[in-house]
Amino acid sequence: MSRFEPVDPNFAARIRDSFARQGAMEHLGACLNRIEPGLVEIELPFRPELTQQHGFFHGGITGAIADTAGGYAAFTLISAEATMLTEEYKITLIAPADGDKLIATGRVLKPGRTLTICEMEVAAVKAGAATVCARGMQTLIRLEGRPDRPAG
Amino acid sequence: MSRFEPVDPNFAARIRDSFARQGAMEHLGACLNRIEPGLVEIELPFRPELTQQHGFFHGGITGAIADTAGGYAAFTLISAEATMLTEEYKITLIAPADGDKLIATGRVLKPGRTLTICEMEVAAVKAGAATVCARGMQTLIRLEGRPDRPAG
Amino acid sequence: MSRFEPVDPNFAARIRDSFARQGAMEHLGACLNRIEPGLVEIELPFRPELTQQHGFFHGGITGAIADTAGGYAAFTLISAEATMLTEEYKITLIAPADGDKLIATGRVLKPGRTLTICEMEVAAVKAGAATVCARGMQTLIRLEGRPDRPAG
Amino acid sequence: MSRFEPVDPNFAARIRDSFARQGAMEHLGACLNRIEPGLVEIELPFRPELTQQHGFFHGGITGAIADTAGGYAAFTLISAEATMLTEEYKITLIAPADGDKLIATGRVLKPGRTLTICEMEVAAVKAGAATVCARGMQTLIRLEGRPDRPAG
Repeated sequence: MSRFEPVDPNFAARIRDSFARQGAMEHLGACLNRIEPGLVEIELPFRPELTQQHGFFHGGITGAIADTAGGYAAFTLISAEATMLTEEYKITLIAPADGDKLIATGRVLKPGRTLTICEMEVAAVKAGAATVCARGMQTLIRLEGRPDRPAG
Repeated sequence: MSRFEPVDPNFAARIRDSFARQGAMEHLGACLNRIEPGLVEIELPFRPELTQQHGFFHGGITGAIADTAGGYAAFTLISAEATMLTEEYKITLIAPADGDKLIATGRVLKPGRTLTICEMEVAAVKAGAATVCARGMQTLIRLEGRPDRPAG
Repeated sequence: MSRFEPVDPNFAARIRDSFARQGAMEHLGACLNRIEPGLVEIELPFRPELTQQHGFFHGGITGAIADTAGGYAAFTLISAEATMLTEEYKITLIAPADGDKLIATGRVLKPGRTLTICEMEVAAVKAGAATVCARGMQTLIRLEGRPDRPAG
Repeated sequence: MSRFEPVDPNFAARIRDSFARQGAMEHLGACLNRIEPGLVEIELPFRPELTQQHGFFHGGITGAIADTAGGYAAFTLISAEATMLTEEYKITLIAPADGDKLIATGRVLKPGRTLTICEMEVAAVKAGAATVCARGMQTLIRLEGRPDRPAG
């Protein structure tokens, strides 16, 4: 059970809509797994198009899905009339991102009127075994009165 | 003129070779611009495949090319028998990444036997005018005796 | 010449007043050197009370004056009716903080209505020669309508 | 029960000895609470000498004890012939540090031959109730063959 109470009961649908408009996530091949109040999980299957020079997931790609998971975790707690932007994130790569897929989990540490703080964890899953390969922290700013999807 | 003296005069060729093996950089459409002792510049032309939900470059993609620019800046100063891995990076997004292309510049602040510290700056170029959209810092670890391209 | 235009011409006096109310800065023995639009410099003379276990300045103390220098750099650009709080900072210790004094310089990278981004540099000065020992980045949040010194 | 196995069974005594030689910790009035494999807790009672301009604990002081707690957490896992230095840390201040005391807890996320990654949490305790006021991440480098206390 989450300790967070979403403002908009329709938050998961808004996130799926927003995520689908992120060309970058589609280009990487990422998809949304879990969407809960204060928590979002993104899955990224391995492809050679995501690698650094030694054949592991690129650290910048690991960071990109961590940033996105944290951003949408924050997004679960805002109203339909607002959007969230990342202001900064920090990623520490603690093991090679060697796996069949990455699972990035973003969690809200502290939601706020203006700023929301999240933490992220990325696991590399190889033959069913998950190893944490990155940890991160993130600050997001809420833009109130600016819906994520502008009226058409 | 650079204040750094490269150990391997062939550093630029090694970096081009390593970059070409990064599936992720090719998939994003990034290319190497400048390679100088302690400095590497990466260019990333705009494509809808690189965007967040509002049509700007995705912050995670901005971070990915900044990480890569910093990493190869550090790489300019190591021997042919070593490689460099990112240990951590921090990116602050200071303006929307709105442009025809991004230019990420990585600079070595402090090279070291084990750790190298870099800083990164990303500019969004729109109709010829560049705006700094991100700044970052990064720690890299040198793996001596492990050439970036293993003997085949 | 600064590229920043202060809102309140009296900014330096407000900063000196605020700094003087920081019990921590007095306890460490820090003082304000330069105060310019978007830039503040803090000096911290060496004392055994500031050391880590090997007799150098403690990294946490280096970080504390860097945080303060960045915070007041941001403070130079706000109105008399506002205050600034650090939201996050990141410090990289790039050389031992070995010197007769530390000089921490905070610079505004990007001032904003809500958030201001600063960068910091700390130099250790030994027998007149300065060595950069730390670099940092910082996010600050402006609280409008909350003067730094509440009316008595 | 800890998931870490200390190399030196005498780690707690070495940490108490090292901490006692940190002039900065004594000057702030900090003391060691818990020392376990991979975990160290530091307590800092409130004093006006530790405040920022509004009377709360200074964010730089909060960061300093977090850095120290993480550093000694890493220290619990090294041999008597080595020492640990902070390479970088990042602190996010998520609530005002308003309390009778701060409790900083450092935990090892990933110990390594060269680098160790820690995370830190600082709680402000007020009238018995603890509120998390800061979270952080840290990278440390191990110097093997350089005992923390050089032979006299």
